Amino acid sequence: MTIAVIGAGYVGLPLAIAFAKHHSVVCYDINQGRILQLLKGIDLNKQHSKNDILNKKLFFTDDSNLLKKIDIYIITVPTPINLSNQPDLSMLEQASLLVGKYIKKDSIIIYESTTYPGCTEEFCIPLLEKSSQLKYGKDFFVAYSPERVNPGDKINTLQTIVKIVGANDQKTLKAVGKLYKKICKSICYVNSIKIAESAKVIENVQRDINIALVNELSVLFHKLNIPTNEVLKAAATKWNFHYYKPGLVGGHCIGIDPYYLAYKAEQYNYFPQLILSGRRFNENMGRYIATQTVQLLSKKNIANSKANIAILGFSFKENIPDCRNTKVIQIFHELKNWKIKAEVFDPHVLISEVREEYGITVKKLKELKNKKFEKIFLVVSHKKYIKKLSFYNSFYKNKNKKIMIDVKNIFHENELKKNKYVYFQL
Amino acid sequence: MTIAVIGAGYVGLPLAIAFAKHHSVVCYDINQGRILQLLKGIDLNKQHSKNDILNKKLFFTDDSNLLKKIDIYIITVPTPINLSNQPDLSMLEQASLLVGKYIKKDSIIIYESTTYPGCTEEFCIPLLEKSSQLKYGKDFFVAYSPERVNPGDKINTLQTIVKIVGANDQKTLKAVGKLYKKICKSICYVNSIKIAESAKVIENVQRDINIALVNELSVLFHKLNIPTNEVLKAAATKWNFHYYKPGLVGGHCIGIDPYYLAYKAEQYNYFPQLILSGRRFNENMGRYIATQTVQLLSKKNIANSKANIAILGFSFKENIPDCRNTKVIQIFHELKNWKIKAEVFDPHVLISEVREEYGITVKKLKELKNKKFEKIFLVVSHKKYIKKLSFYNSFYKNKNKKIMIDVKNIFHENELKKNKYVYFQL
Repeated sequence: MTIAVIGAGYVGLPLAIAFAKHHSVVCYDINQGRILQLLKGIDLNKQHSKNDILNKKLFFTDDSNLLKKIDIYIITVPTPINLSNQPDLSMLEQASLLVGKYIKKDSIIIYESTTYPGCTEEFCIPLLEKSSQLKYGKDFFVAYSPERVNPGDKINTLQTIVKIVGANDQKTLKAVGKLYKKICKSICYVNSIKIAESAKVIENVQRDINIALVNELSVLFHKLNIPTNEVLKAAATKWNFHYYKPGLVGGHCIGIDPYYLAYKAEQYNYFPQLILSGRRFNENMGRYIATQTVQLLSKKNIANSKANIAILGFSFKENIPDCRNTKVIQIFHELKNWKIKAEVFDPHVLISEVREEYGITVKKLKELKNKKFEKIFLVVSHKKYIKKLSFYNSFYKNKNKKIMIDVKNIFHENELKKNKYVYFQL
Repeated sequence: MTIAVIGAGYVGLPLAIAFAKHHSVVCYDINQGRILQLLKGIDLNKQHSKNDILNKKLFFTDDSNLLKKIDIYIITVPTPINLSNQPDLSMLEQASLLVGKYIKKDSIIIYESTTYPGCTEEFCIPLLEKSSQLKYGKDFFVAYSPERVNPGDKINTLQTIVKIVGANDQKTLKAVGKLYKKICKSICYVNSIKIAESAKVIENVQRDINIALVNELSVLFHKLNIPTNEVLKAAATKWNFHYYKPGLVGGHCIGIDPYYLAYKAEQYNYFPQLILSGRRFNENMGRYIATQTVQLLSKKNIANSKANIAILGFSFKENIPDCRNTKVIQIFHELKNWKIKAEVFDPHVLISEVREEYGITVKKLKELKNKKFEKIFLVVSHKKYIKKLSFYNSFYKNKNKKIMIDVKNIFHENELKKNKYVYFQL
């Protein structure tokens, strides 16, 4: 049995590596640069080691001709949103048309890309049929098995999670379940593609809303002069409280998937109330944080145009280089609106990638050491070596005007007070 | 040391019983009927046995003169909402004025009633001062320790939970913590009354929103013809998914506390988005369920006025008599708007209490057996002995028009189909 994985990114690469322990795997990506790196054993996403990547049964390619003579195709391409927050299915479309060219009698195509309920049957399968001139359910078969990749998480990996597998017929369901059983801890079988699609998308909707709630509580408690951090810690002593922390919501999942579900809902003239309420709130957090920063400058009589600010952290999550849909850029742009110049430092992100995607030049953390910041520090992502407050003291020009925006509540309030910081915490 | 517990309800009674194992306790309630029952060892809320109640060191009374010569007062009165969904602090006011009459130098007053952040300091303490002519922080001291009573829950009880204790001075904090340590598993100390108030109120806000989300998903998936139940079960296989089930949200906490927090927020010109979004959705679920019922009647060509419906379950939660803020009444009234007559059956609730509070006569479950329902069954609360589908078959007049509204997803879809039910599930 041969497997082709379409897309060699955060989802496809771990999958290809895992299956290559059991089968011959072709890992295809249209990004030639990515393929060239993988051929050298380099994963710039830092998910996998050279050893993992350089497996004899694993072929990386950008040549679609190698997609012939494959039994099972697994599509793992990104499903982002466009500038109007609507599903951008172009990559799913391309991948489906491409795979359609190569499938044959009894091929199985598995989709892993997150999408809205109904997308596989209403959007992808017709493309497969059109491109292949074969008939779904008779000539070829389709399953949906949502990825549960959690960037930077070493505990919940493909090997340790429960993998959902959904198909509309029992034969495909069993075959695909058996396949994933080789690489995952256990399988959750569901009796339709739609159920599997729905299960995936609501996971992130739930997280989005829960983070939005603590963000709103943070905004409210700030007005009431109550420390959110301590309230959440106390509430978390209840047996059924979910301990979320306020912050920016970025990345490829939580900030995107709710729009997919809402898109489908609106097609049915259902205008979601809860599903998008998290989005509405979380999309404004960057602006809120920037405004708090500006207010602290006023408090210390610092003219905005004279404030140079260091923003520490650019990736959407701690300790990883992943910058997809990072909301730190919101803070950067919002500060610009106030004529405040900010420099961004991050030890993990790929500088060239950020420049291309966001048009700004992120600096390595060591470059910080040559500078004196006049006014302010903005901490967004917490790394091991920025957890000591003393580390920051030296970067302020004026020791009496140390301003700290501690978005991630890294420091204890008492410590900030003792060190005479003017501060803001979420 | 002597303790007085003000309010002998769901919160006060367990507290009085627990403390009476260590101290003399006066348990005061203005409801004479309740006191007379407790003196006989009867708790109509069915939380406690005769043995627990009839303790020699525990005095039940409606005579406030017994509140003299008390060291510690614990106020546990209800904090409901009025018809405009605003805090009804009248009982808190009464209790504070009453206790104020009896406190003396070094008295400690502990509030357990759920309320908004700031209520104890801004509303209650001034009343204590006014009534006592003593000074808070100098003559008497106040702590806030939110109740975490979960009606019907035998696992998370006063004895097994972490109890939050908050006070604005360290001496009171320690004294009150030490007191509760005698009866609770462990204490979570927080450094202000406001933090403790906030921690309590957000716990229920979080639950409300999470239930509202699955309710919205249920409404949406019903339109998309996707079984919500199976989607939630599949999603729950993810390590960080919170498995809530759709349903009516009643009771004294979840459906009420968010209004308290919103009330405070609006005083600060902050109009909550997330905090109330759960309320908005959950308040409509009764109407939604009733509408689905009516649609099923149409499907079977049954005139509304000829449909007699049995509603099974009236309490706000399974297996308990607690009817506070039950939303089953919403279904009842909504059906009435469609000229549909419904009878309500519940084995646990106090019939007289429901009649007084809601103006309807709930019937015991055994009365069901003498009746034939022409058309429909509506199950709201699940009891052990209503989990068998066969139990219901006999109550339908027309075996070909069995309609089941299974709000709690008690039955598997396949079973309903096999038994030829026309059904609706959340």
